[in-house]
Amino acid sequence: MASTKKFDIENLGTATFPSPLHLSKTKGDKVFNFVQDKDRLLYNISLSEFNRCVTENDEPLCLQKAGPREKLLFDPPKTTAAIVTCGGLCPGINNVIRSLVMGLYYFYGVKNILGIPYGYEGLIPSYGHKLKHLTPDVVKDIHEFGGTVLGSSRGGQSVSDMVDTLEDNQVDMLFAIGGDGTLKGANAIGEEIQKRGLKISVVGIPKTIDNDINLIDKSFGFETAFDMASPIIRDAHNEATGAYNGVSIVKLMGRDSGFIAACAAMSMPVVNFVLVPEMEFQLHGENGFLESLRDRLETKHHAVIVVAEGAGQHLFAEDGAETKDASGNVKHKDIGPFLKSEIGNYFKTMDKQVTIKYIDPSYIIRSAPANAGDSIFCSRLAHYAIHGAMAGKTKFVVGRLNNKFVYLPISEVTSRRKKIDLEGEFWFAVLESTGQPFLMG
Amino acid sequence: MASTKKFDIENLGTATFPSPLHLSKTKGDKVFNFVQDKDRLLYNISLSEFNRCVTENDEPLCLQKAGPREKLLFDPPKTTAAIVTCGGLCPGINNVIRSLVMGLYYFYGVKNILGIPYGYEGLIPSYGHKLKHLTPDVVKDIHEFGGTVLGSSRGGQSVSDMVDTLEDNQVDMLFAIGGDGTLKGANAIGEEIQKRGLKISVVGIPKTIDNDINLIDKSFGFETAFDMASPIIRDAHNEATGAYNGVSIVKLMGRDSGFIAACAAMSMPVVNFVLVPEMEFQLHGENGFLESLRDRLETKHHAVIVVAEGAGQHLFAEDGAETKDASGNVKHKDIGPFLKSEIGNYFKTMDKQVTIKYIDPSYIIRSAPANAGDSIFCSRLAHYAIHGAMAGKTKFVVGRLNNKFVYLPISEVTSRRKKIDLEGEFWFAVLESTGQPFLMG
Amino acid sequence: MASTKKFDIENLGTATFPSPLHLSKTKGDKVFNFVQDKDRLLYNISLSEFNRCVTENDEPLCLQKAGPREKLLFDPPKTTAAIVTCGGLCPGINNVIRSLVMGLYYFYGVKNILGIPYGYEGLIPSYGHKLKHLTPDVVKDIHEFGGTVLGSSRGGQSVSDMVDTLEDNQVDMLFAIGGDGTLKGANAIGEEIQKRGLKISVVGIPKTIDNDINLIDKSFGFETAFDMASPIIRDAHNEATGAYNGVSIVKLMGRDSGFIAACAAMSMPVVNFVLVPEMEFQLHGENGFLESLRDRLETKHHAVIVVAEGAGQHLFAEDGAETKDASGNVKHKDIGPFLKSEIGNYFKTMDKQVTIKYIDPSYIIRSAPANAGDSIFCSRLAHYAIHGAMAGKTKFVVGRLNNKFVYLPISEVTSRRKKIDLEGEFWFAVLESTGQPFLMG
Amino acid sequence: MASTKKFDIENLGTATFPSPLHLSKTKGDKVFNFVQDKDRLLYNISLSEFNRCVTENDEPLCLQKAGPREKLLFDPPKTTAAIVTCGGLCPGINNVIRSLVMGLYYFYGVKNILGIPYGYEGLIPSYGHKLKHLTPDVVKDIHEFGGTVLGSSRGGQSVSDMVDTLEDNQVDMLFAIGGDGTLKGANAIGEEIQKRGLKISVVGIPKTIDNDINLIDKSFGFETAFDMASPIIRDAHNEATGAYNGVSIVKLMGRDSGFIAACAAMSMPVVNFVLVPEMEFQLHGENGFLESLRDRLETKHHAVIVVAEGAGQHLFAEDGAETKDASGNVKHKDIGPFLKSEIGNYFKTMDKQVTIKYIDPSYIIRSAPANAGDSIFCSRLAHYAIHGAMAGKTKFVVGRLNNKFVYLPISEVTSRRKKIDLEGEFWFAVLESTGQPFLMG
Repeated sequence: MASTKKFDIENLGTATFPSPLHLSKTKGDKVFNFVQDKDRLLYNISLSEFNRCVTENDEPLCLQKAGPREKLLFDPPKTTAAIVTCGGLCPGINNVIRSLVMGLYYFYGVKNILGIPYGYEGLIPSYGHKLKHLTPDVVKDIHEFGGTVLGSSRGGQSVSDMVDTLEDNQVDMLFAIGGDGTLKGANAIGEEIQKRGLKISVVGIPKTIDNDINLIDKSFGFETAFDMASPIIRDAHNEATGAYNGVSIVKLMGRDSGFIAACAAMSMPVVNFVLVPEMEFQLHGENGFLESLRDRLETKHHAVIVVAEGAGQHLFAEDGAETKDASGNVKHKDIGPFLKSEIGNYFKTMDKQVTIKYIDPSYIIRSAPANAGDSIFCSRLAHYAIHGAMAGKTKFVVGRLNNKFVYLPISEVTSRRKKIDLEGEFWFAVLESTGQPFLMG
Repeated sequence: MASTKKFDIENLGTATFPSPLHLSKTKGDKVFNFVQDKDRLLYNISLSEFNRCVTENDEPLCLQKAGPREKLLFDPPKTTAAIVTCGGLCPGINNVIRSLVMGLYYFYGVKNILGIPYGYEGLIPSYGHKLKHLTPDVVKDIHEFGGTVLGSSRGGQSVSDMVDTLEDNQVDMLFAIGGDGTLKGANAIGEEIQKRGLKISVVGIPKTIDNDINLIDKSFGFETAFDMASPIIRDAHNEATGAYNGVSIVKLMGRDSGFIAACAAMSMPVVNFVLVPEMEFQLHGENGFLESLRDRLETKHHAVIVVAEGAGQHLFAEDGAETKDASGNVKHKDIGPFLKSEIGNYFKTMDKQVTIKYIDPSYIIRSAPANAGDSIFCSRLAHYAIHGAMAGKTKFVVGRLNNKFVYLPISEVTSRRKKIDLEGEFWFAVLESTGQPFLMG
Repeated sequence: MASTKKFDIENLGTATFPSPLHLSKTKGDKVFNFVQDKDRLLYNISLSEFNRCVTENDEPLCLQKAGPREKLLFDPPKTTAAIVTCGGLCPGINNVIRSLVMGLYYFYGVKNILGIPYGYEGLIPSYGHKLKHLTPDVVKDIHEFGGTVLGSSRGGQSVSDMVDTLEDNQVDMLFAIGGDGTLKGANAIGEEIQKRGLKISVVGIPKTIDNDINLIDKSFGFETAFDMASPIIRDAHNEATGAYNGVSIVKLMGRDSGFIAACAAMSMPVVNFVLVPEMEFQLHGENGFLESLRDRLETKHHAVIVVAEGAGQHLFAEDGAETKDASGNVKHKDIGPFLKSEIGNYFKTMDKQVTIKYIDPSYIIRSAPANAGDSIFCSRLAHYAIHGAMAGKTKFVVGRLNNKFVYLPISEVTSRRKKIDLEGEFWFAVLESTGQPFLMG
Repeated sequence: MASTKKFDIENLGTATFPSPLHLSKTKGDKVFNFVQDKDRLLYNISLSEFNRCVTENDEPLCLQKAGPREKLLFDPPKTTAAIVTCGGLCPGINNVIRSLVMGLYYFYGVKNILGIPYGYEGLIPSYGHKLKHLTPDVVKDIHEFGGTVLGSSRGGQSVSDMVDTLEDNQVDMLFAIGGDGTLKGANAIGEEIQKRGLKISVVGIPKTIDNDINLIDKSFGFETAFDMASPIIRDAHNEATGAYNGVSIVKLMGRDSGFIAACAAMSMPVVNFVLVPEMEFQLHGENGFLESLRDRLETKHHAVIVVAEGAGQHLFAEDGAETKDASGNVKHKDIGPFLKSEIGNYFKTMDKQVTIKYIDPSYIIRSAPANAGDSIFCSRLAHYAIHGAMAGKTKFVVGRLNNKFVYLPISEVTSRRKKIDLEGEFWFAVLESTGQPFLMG
């Protein structure tokens, strides 16, 4: 009865080549079955939503299940794939590259795989970067390293020129690993391709260490990020307890969403305050952050604060025009030193000695190699991306929702960012862990 | 319309005390809302199941959502809680203990918390183990350590005697952290309590490093387990490549389910063969494991094999009576040395030199401290366990399903073990990672 | 024939109590022999120095061998020891504290051990910090943690008041763990004690993460420091290679001596330039640093620079009065951001695009727990410190020279700082590792 | 006056080519000076030995200082170097290989560098292994990996055939990285070369994870070994405390010398007993090991034992002929399971319940990558090896003594193994750390 029109994935044409994967179409033979486009998964899994749909005779919101399709649009031995990595570093990029190459090469028999150097710049001939030929031998050890072996760059390039390069190199599918801007760029490339009547599949693998991709459970590298941050918070705790009224501030990534700060704090439960962009806390006044901090110091004589880089922007006086970075993100004021200074001034005013340590480990976290969980996650994302591309799907990303891998239209995940719901159970868990007040000011 | 009778959680009585948690009952106030017993989550989240239920007018299978309830059965200042840890070590036990103590103490104001020493033995006075008084100060640093600060033991004890001890110590709620046997014991304790007409909540927090708890996504410590195994597999790879025709065998935990072996192998993608209990592979003959291994050596001259401890039991000749360990688990034959010997003999027969290294890191993995992801998971499990216990629920475990925390009756999760579905997408992902044949023999 | 008057250690009096250690005085019985004050070790171990001494009939420079003495000044059951930790954090402080407590308690039977809280502040009653009683049970797990469980503070306090507190608490020996300022303070305390005719042994355990203690091989925490820095440099390398013409700058500790920067760079041999305080490099001009950097970028398109915090102070314009921190150290100008800015400007001038990442991991390094090597080293330093104190020696530090543990007068090690000899083999090894020019400018 | 004939290093001929290293011959110019053969360092650095030499007019025992010489025997652009790695894995082998290649290539301009695959087998054509051409690009990342990229093998090969291969490939210098057997083999190769009147320098870089090389402070990989063992011992402690009367046994490497066991135990000071090959302890009887263990359990109810693989061989009944492994080492009886069984039987006899865990992490340790300290050490050993080889020295090893790098004749270091002196201060430090009795039985 129920079906869904939403979140449909576009196909470049009718897939006709049989998949070389020896999978099954029948249950019970101990061999995995091909996945069909009609296999879908519910977005909202509460019983009340089920009942609402039934009562209102409404279609539930669904997503297409990721996985290998029986028919391919591309003939593997004649297929050329290209991989590009854009934006800032994030743990796991090399794992994704490796698994794309291994999966294309060994499973589908795609032997022609191009690495685009230094992000979208690498698709613009005038930069003079040379395309790399990627083989299993080239990538076999790269999962041990952070960073990206292809290099990266920020910012967009001429869509038309980039598609020219894809055409010139007879690329059949482009895997774009990057964040919001990169994915929007990939979508534009996909649209230009369709406008030109070409058959080049464009697949996004969302890379955002901030875990702020709309609709999906988590993005790769995110778990490694708070795994790396965890011992640093322990160090910050050592600094805080090492001095009388010691206060340690750890600034972590999180431009618009505080997931890393929140998870890092929960993972090393010595944190007393987590400040995230989603929460408009007040510094001063009754119930303000500084008063809460003072309470903490008076009872325990040390405190650890984790602050997301995008937190507290409302505390900075308006000073006219916003500035943006090369990726088009609004440049934030630096909350870390600001907080350090405000805390220092506050206690100086009341003649109370505090020792404040400020720690900003950003690059150390984002350039680390993926941890074990992310390594698996990256591999699986890459394999699902390949399956979708070979079937001729385009302008989609691969992601995980409710613990299942799905395909989503790029346009849906770039429409807005995922944020912490201050009223949700995740944020409540953070408050349980830190013991900080629900609202500050 | 739809409702569910399944997976209901028992309550010891009508909860009447107001929760001291300052939560909300209205949406939109940026304060988390109390969770109600009627809040439920779908078990099967596929669109086809949704459609089946609608078509057949069937109730979907649902689970009760975990979370703080508005009314409590126990008056916090007068409540005594007890914590017991049983069975083998698993990363994260101390995290659970710590979060139970912190949550009970600071959130609900339960100050009387007893630590039961050395598992169920600690509830039997004749062993002479002394109960410990647990406070925030006692537990504040224990999350940094593997193992269990309470000590543990295997095997059951007299249910009646254990309930006597709970009564004698005026315990109102017992948190039992343990595996299958422990949970069955907890259920029996819960039944004896109800038979006596007592109001003692019994809560299970499933501990199985093998991740083989029925119905739930994952158990705590599992992620740390393959995180710890990952560099050991890299070491095994170094050993394998360090010799001509080098073969490394890594035996990992997994009595009946091969999740650790599978995830560890995917996390360090140098593994060529994963052997799990779910798969009845053949050693000899065409397409047998040894022939596949020979193929591998002939092309690459090294190989890495990860084998779950419970794999290949079908290969041992029947020799009469099974033996069981103190926890009541069937004692397995040791597949590791057997495999080493069989591989050695096979290649000796064909006069091919191989160098075999056998690695068994079991204790190193299970006694490690929890990684960052598990630390969060353990904290959240503990907090949800507290919420359920304070509300007067009993004979339930806390778990995660489809990425959400739920309560499940103990009897449901101990009815059978979760296993790898050889036809499912998880095992397919393993095969994609290793490149091993679908079926061996 | 030869003897030495130099580097003699003062004794508070004649030791008369027999040591409770069951050691030997004869060789060949497989039991360690008591060490005698006359056991000495050569400072300069070259053959040429040997020959010079022989030719000129000169005494070689020698140091007293550390170790347990047969006779003690203090009667263990009646002895009170005190431990104080001062200055910034350094890996291994807790290891030293633990080993002092364990050694005093179990070997000599000294049961009364006081922990002085928050550095020398803790010896001044007006601060209101409470002395802690230290027992094996209190310290048994602290070696797992960075920081100091006693807390610390910077700066000196009234020597007279501190000695009053020692007297009031009937302290017989004070173990002062700290840097240059702390040791000078300890010496002053020792002199005041002698002036008052008291018998309180004062022992320094040199703590300087910079490894700049005069005369000795290395100070504790130093190895952990570059061990911690090593993966951070690898991360910096990932950042550098992740962008076209990527340049990463890692600022490491080293106020006056560049040992951490140099060793960290050698331990992760992707570093192209190490800048240390001992080297007066030029930025501009032929053979200047910037020109060398440009050469590097033109051939390899990425570069990693490690700079000690005290490097390049000669590059800042004189601006009048020096400022000092609470420990009395001259406050340095911040070379890190200066270098980032100068590099940026230089390449902007020549219209060459570079991407610069600046990493300052200071607190992450110093608050880490000791690695295995430092753990052993800290234990041994502590045990040797105890042996010296029990024998009644005072105003000495324990250190290692030519791989042997020795006692040195505090006054000798605080007279000047150890620095890298730019003409020595250590610096040559650094140059071999980085390939940077001998002199820059 | 004094000079020494001992420990002289042989030269293949008169060095005539000027070194391309821009070093100095004068002091004070901030440029490192070339080292001369007459620069020597004292072996025994005690004042008493100094006095003895003076009194008896004896020459002190000296070693030649390692370092770059002004004149070379080989003309770098025409030089071919070869590298071979033999025997079991040890952390740091790849670091040595990398630094040999980088140093030869960039410092001396030796561009022709051959990697011999799979140990001495690679020098015997009939095995069919192909020589590898090593360049900076090939080796640049290998320091991140344990194992050896060249592969290894055990056992000797025909010296004559190996020299034939060196001749056939016009090799001028052979760097042999390996243990006792490998070094003896290298010496034999060197002698055969001289017999044939060839000019091929043979250099040994001693590789023994056991740290049992005669005369030198430490061998590479040793520090990493106990660094890796340290957390495993902590895990063992968690296992021990996790059960009532829990006993954990950790078997570590150490065939004839117990350095790893001893250092690992000191680095994680929860170990109660260290058993090493040098100590002939008794199991039974008064003061025997089992009685000491019982005392420990009665007071603390848990114990951790670290045992070197070669310990306790005297406890096994003589059973005729010794067996040897491919490297010619006597095969030891397995002390680990023996000890587990003996402990179990002992307590079973006295009806005391104990829980014993046995951990054997051997391969995990030896195949790990080098830690930061060993990375530096490996680099420096490699560089010093190059300097000696280029100057035409042969049949020597590079090592460190009294914290200085020296050259030693291979024949001296292979004459006997370094062992723990049970009467020395190192073993006393172990006893201080564990608190175990001096003699057991």
